Order: sequence, then structure tokens, then C-alpha cells
Amino acid sequence: MDKFLKAAIEQAQKGRKEGGIPIGSVLVHQGNILGKGHNRRVQNNSVILHAEMDALENAGRLPAKVYRESVLYTTLSPCPMCTGAILLYKIPKIIIGENTSFMGAENLLKDHGVEVIVLNDEECIQMMNDFIKENPGLWNEDIGE
Amino acid sequence: MDKFLKAAIEQAQKGRKEGGIPIGSVLVHQGNILGKGHNRRVQNNSVILHAEMDALENAGRLPAKVYRESVLYTTLSPCPMCTGAILLYKIPKIIIGENTSFMGAENLLKDHGVEVIVLNDEECIQMMNDFIKENPGLWNEDIGE
Repeated sequence: MDKFLKAAIEQAQKGRKEGGIPIGSVLVHQGNILGKGHNRRVQNNSVILHAEMDALENAGRLPAKVYRESVLYTTLSPCPMCTGAILLYKIPKIIIGENTSFMGAENLLKDHGVEVIVLNDEECIQMMNDFIKENPGLWNEDIGE
Repeated sequence: MDKFLKAAIEQAQKGRKEGGIPIGSVLVHQGNILGKGHNRRVQNNSVILHAEMDALENAGRLPAKVYRESVLYTTLSPCPMCTGAILLYKIPKIIIGENTSFMGAENLLKDHGVEVIVLNDEECIQMMNDFIKENPGLWNEDIGE
């Protein structure tokens, strides 16, 4: 498996162990992970720290040029908020673990020229399906439903 | 002046006094402010705490129904990230102080049926024009340029 997807899955699993929603993300620049993150709705009572947002926040303040050379990995298709963050910083490429349990704003990314690669990784799918089945209320809260 | 725009401007001014970027926001539900926020790039070294995100975060975890009955005030036209957060939580109405110094993703909001009201308030315009003139590098960083 792609080592960066693996790192994103490890973030998701870490979040799950903390009692949170199992979604993970890493920001990668020239083969190096600049920031790792996972959903922190439960842990921090946060409504904005989705995994991708947490990875971006943990990467810190970066020059515009770095974002534009980076790849964002996420275990799950990015919601409109995370999509907007990707567009704000003009991250050119997104690698998505799966989009079968939730379809985010991938078309908006593509409309703006972002390269979107969906792996539909079995481990990512299983992880989200199990979580959603066990925690439908929490999951719906996280996607604004 | 609308008291909620005034509260958003006060947030922006607070941010400026802290050495930050003068953009403020409040989330309003049935005449009550649920959350106030201002840009925290400088203060928290945050790349995600734009004013609107900070207001949403400070409002805490709310039922989906509450977001859908709320109005978000912001002193400046919302960037793609903040626009995405508005779409995620299906906030139906946005009142914007001004969009002359920066034009955000207002069309995306409108495309999704969000009511967008732009006041082009003189105080908001002056505040941003002064800031951008004095801090072009910081401003460009905040909008991913």
C-alpha cells in the first residue's frame, strides 16, 4: 500500500482509539509528510477539525508555493469545507482512500483543475462502514445532516 | 448599523489590536449570537481559523437544524474554505460587510441557494484597505497567494 495512504489510515485509527470519527489525512510535499491529522469532533468538540483541516493546521503556515506542490491524502472523500480549504490553498492533487460510504465535493475539485484520485481501498471502506453503522448520529452531525 | 454587523466589526477590530488580520464574524440564530470569531492566522499561527471558521468553532457543536435557521455575518466576502463550511452546515443566509477589497466564492454560495447580502459598509472597506496596504505579504498568505 502507498505509504502515505497508510499514514492517513493510521491517523484515522488513532482517532477511533480516542473515541473519535475514524478519518485521517496527511499533507505531503516532495515525498515528505508536512502535517498529519484526524477528525477531532469528539476529542476537541470541534466542528471544523475534519481530518484534512487538522492536517493542514498541523502543517503550519506554509508559503503558497509549497501548497501548490503538495498532495493531500485523505481516507475519505472530502466534504465541501475541506474541499474549499484545498481550493483556497490551491493544492493540485488529492488522493482519496474511498468515496463509497460518503461522496464529497469531488466534482467541485475537478471543476477547478484539481487532480482527484480515488483508491477505494478496502480497509478505508470497512473502517467507515463499521463506524457509520455503530454511530449514525455522530456521523450525521459531522456531515451537517 | 445592523447590531450583528457591528459585533462582527468589533471582532475584526479586536483581531487587529492583537496584531492580527482584521476580519470578524458572528453566527446568529433567532436574534441571538451563538458564536463570535476573528481571523487568528497571526495570533494562533492558524491556517484554518479565518473569522467565519472561528465563529463556527466558538459556537460549538450545534444540531443540524440550528445551522439551517442561522445567519452568518462576516466583515469580508468569504473565501472558498469558509464558503465550503457554510455549505457543509447548510447555513441559508450570509450577510457580508464588503466585497470590494476581496471577492470570495459568493457565486458558489448562490449556486447552492444561499442568500447572499453584501452591504459594502464603508467602515469594513476602510479597515481592509488600510490593512492590505500596510501588510500585503500577510494578506496574500491568508488568501493562499
